[in-house]
Amino acid sequence: MLSIPFNGKGDACFPEPLPDDMADAFNPNHFSYAVALAHEKLTAHLARDDVEGARQERPSDLLCEARDLMTDAPGDRFDAERFSGILDLYLRTGIKVNSRGYMARQFSSVAPVSAVFDMVSAMAPQPASFYEVGPLPNVADKLIAEEFGRRLGWAPNSFEMVSTSGASLANMTAVLAARNRHFAGSWKQGVRSGLKGRPAVAIGADSHFSVSRICGILGIGEDQVVRLPLNSRRQISVEGAAETLNAAAERGLNVFCIVAAAGSTATGANDPLPALADLARARGAWLHVDAAHNGAFLVSDRLQPRVQGLELADSFCLDAHKTLFMPAACTLLFYRERGVAVTAFPQKASYVLDPEEDEISRFESGVRNFECTKRPAILNLWLTWALYGRRFFEAKLDYLVDLTRAAHDYLASQPDFEVAHEPESNILCFVHKPAGSASLDIDRLQLELRNRVRDANRYFISKVDLDRRTTLRIVMMNHRIGIEDIAGLVEEIRRHGRDVVREWTVKGAAA
Amino acid sequence: MLSIPFNGKGDACFPEPLPDDMADAFNPNHFSYAVALAHEKLTAHLARDDVEGARQERPSDLLCEARDLMTDAPGDRFDAERFSGILDLYLRTGIKVNSRGYMARQFSSVAPVSAVFDMVSAMAPQPASFYEVGPLPNVADKLIAEEFGRRLGWAPNSFEMVSTSGASLANMTAVLAARNRHFAGSWKQGVRSGLKGRPAVAIGADSHFSVSRICGILGIGEDQVVRLPLNSRRQISVEGAAETLNAAAERGLNVFCIVAAAGSTATGANDPLPALADLARARGAWLHVDAAHNGAFLVSDRLQPRVQGLELADSFCLDAHKTLFMPAACTLLFYRERGVAVTAFPQKASYVLDPEEDEISRFESGVRNFECTKRPAILNLWLTWALYGRRFFEAKLDYLVDLTRAAHDYLASQPDFEVAHEPESNILCFVHKPAGSASLDIDRLQLELRNRVRDANRYFISKVDLDRRTTLRIVMMNHRIGIEDIAGLVEEIRRHGRDVVREWTVKGAAA
Repeated sequence: MLSIPFNGKGDACFPEPLPDDMADAFNPNHFSYAVALAHEKLTAHLARDDVEGARQERPSDLLCEARDLMTDAPGDRFDAERFSGILDLYLRTGIKVNSRGYMARQFSSVAPVSAVFDMVSAMAPQPASFYEVGPLPNVADKLIAEEFGRRLGWAPNSFEMVSTSGASLANMTAVLAARNRHFAGSWKQGVRSGLKGRPAVAIGADSHFSVSRICGILGIGEDQVVRLPLNSRRQISVEGAAETLNAAAERGLNVFCIVAAAGSTATGANDPLPALADLARARGAWLHVDAAHNGAFLVSDRLQPRVQGLELADSFCLDAHKTLFMPAACTLLFYRERGVAVTAFPQKASYVLDPEEDEISRFESGVRNFECTKRPAILNLWLTWALYGRRFFEAKLDYLVDLTRAAHDYLASQPDFEVAHEPESNILCFVHKPAGSASLDIDRLQLELRNRVRDANRYFISKVDLDRRTTLRIVMMNHRIGIEDIAGLVEEIRRHGRDVVREWTVKGAAA
Repeated sequence: MLSIPFNGKGDACFPEPLPDDMADAFNPNHFSYAVALAHEKLTAHLARDDVEGARQERPSDLLCEARDLMTDAPGDRFDAERFSGILDLYLRTGIKVNSRGYMARQFSSVAPVSAVFDMVSAMAPQPASFYEVGPLPNVADKLIAEEFGRRLGWAPNSFEMVSTSGASLANMTAVLAARNRHFAGSWKQGVRSGLKGRPAVAIGADSHFSVSRICGILGIGEDQVVRLPLNSRRQISVEGAAETLNAAAERGLNVFCIVAAAGSTATGANDPLPALADLARARGAWLHVDAAHNGAFLVSDRLQPRVQGLELADSFCLDAHKTLFMPAACTLLFYRERGVAVTAFPQKASYVLDPEEDEISRFESGVRNFECTKRPAILNLWLTWALYGRRFFEAKLDYLVDLTRAAHDYLASQPDFEVAHEPESNILCFVHKPAGSASLDIDRLQLELRNRVRDANRYFISKVDLDRRTTLRIVMMNHRIGIEDIAGLVEEIRRHGRDVVREWTVKGAAA
């Protein structure tokens, strides 16, 4: 303890020591206890082999149950029973991404080491936007960028990668960079019509809602979204796109950016990227690819050809928290040309960066990123890559794509099922047409089937509308799923199909 | 195993079983091993009582060291030694938010239970934007909103809260809602000049860079940012603001939104919110408060009066990952009026939500949020609140503010230090003027002191420019810091001050 020369004010200036109950929350023993409890429950959770994709509960019930778990004794000490109850409630009510029944959406069963690392990075943060406080994530950005750069055939140091928390942010950032580059005054003066018409963005008809709203956010206006038609494989039609872009120009729209998908959220379809890159270049437009879902194909020797052309895009993003099996949210946003990333946020933030630090400034991601406090999510990916190598990601991804192909073939062989498309990734949409359903509303029937299947708590699947036709949809994210689980799902759907046909037919007869 | 009727295709359709090395990564034993290792290292990390705020390392050295930790044997099995090396590297290079030497920025030492929960939510996700897959975070949003609503004196169900990943996103979302409400056509048609002039946003002169760039992003244009002058306490001057807004109107700007701060990033100053709320209302403008830092004062009986007026704002945000001691990123964005939140993203995303689910749709946060895949960070806050009650947050926050006051008084009593302001929160800026420094560049000297103090690896402090005058800055985020550590920092600064004066004086004499 230092002796402090303190003029005049006396003891009153020293704050009271922290109350016991608060210091208690930081007690290492309680940390250890919490870790042990979480470990025990997660191990049991991972070891479960029953089929339960999700369990739906009413919000009002859940609200009461959660409220009951809140202490009414302020300053309470660590209550192991209450913590245990909270973990149980959480694990009970969540989606079961590790169960063979979970087939609904693009949420992943994650690599366990990366989940463990999330505890470490929560307790001992390295905020990733600034080298000074987050050196390792900024270094890991470079190492992961190198790995992907090699796969893309890009020369070292000729490109850039920025990690963001989610593809919504990455897609918006890329379109913002395109907007600022194309309309140099738009950052300072705002979005205005130029000589070549109103700024506009072209997107595929199946684009994710986070893409279609970018124009609304960036001041371009949703009316200036040009929707490109799809071909029979639900890819952007190159011929149709050219025609649509011509028509847009005639309407006074200046399409400065084309946003393609690899793959689409609905069906996993990959747009024809090389042709779209040509089209964009010929028109002086920026090509951005929302490769949130299938960008990860880059890690697989066998799947990479399906996303050929990513290397030609001006920018693209991929979600490591989808098909690279990382905890959310870890998105990689690539720019083909080095130096372009700062275009998104051309503001000078002089007080964030010191003018003198040149070596370090090469590693600073803050000036190229929307986020200020950013989790070092890139480290989850880097450490998993460091431990297991690219092959880990490739093997799981290959398996999931093969499994989806097998599911497609299996469903196609069933007389009462129709597949909606050839699977280009790990997503498959299909329709069930049970005996006796010919006179029923087949779209409403699919929605009803999805709800009943989900509410039975075994298989969790989703639904999606394709050309106003409602389909059932499965997304294979969990490597524990085998073809026998697909067969199990089919039986479950059939069971509900029989029920619905019976109920609706009786009702119809009664009406 | 089910027997599967499969027409015609044969075994080739079944994918090969997963390779051993990949399944190995999901082996529960390896999960257990990783947890044990992380727990051991974190416990040791928390128990460290040496003073080391941060350790600066050269990016090129770190890059080599990290690259060496990457496997060159694809398909390698779990390598405990390598994992241990990665954790050691991470803990060595990061900021030491649990050390008594860490005083630099608004990153928090976190409540351990919340860090443990991050592992759980990584492994067993509940993506928070949609009730179907994330029921508990959507329920927790409501419970946390209730707690704050009570503190604000807001009637139940009269307001809304949306949790976002970071205040940059929350501030942008609020200004977007204001823009869309004020210029009803701006979402669809884009930002255009209206009858009352060009859309513009007024912000305080000390606003965070993430606030000042919102206009650049939203298509309003950075030139349409109106900077409001500050008073001597570095708050927005209400009189000055009125004059500046009048002048802006004369220049043809239509200021639809005023963004105030509680408190500012630089000094923690709280703007005079009630007066600004009056000013905004009189002008028909929206008042948003960036209360990322001091919004948490709402949990403290003693500190709440300092942010009086938050309840009058149209919207405000607070960062739970700052002064509520949560892992990043957990931001709460409040809207005073219920039903306003959807204004930010008026797009219809029909395929995300089913038309039939009415009870559930009240709990859906997706339509009011920029993010699609969102971590359930609100649960870290909720469970800590559930376990320890409001008093936990209040006790730590009160302590940190008292400590900062004591640091202020102590520094003010030292002849060779000058405090730059009265502390309104846990931030304090000051200047060191060592003997013999009268003829030296005092601003450059502060920067040099910050760098030398930081590079000595014991105390980690920041610097900030106030009115073009460079100051040293401490932010008290760690309750383990006592006034004796402030005294230790002062001695460290003095030591470097003597060195710099000697070196610069000799150099000056030699030149």
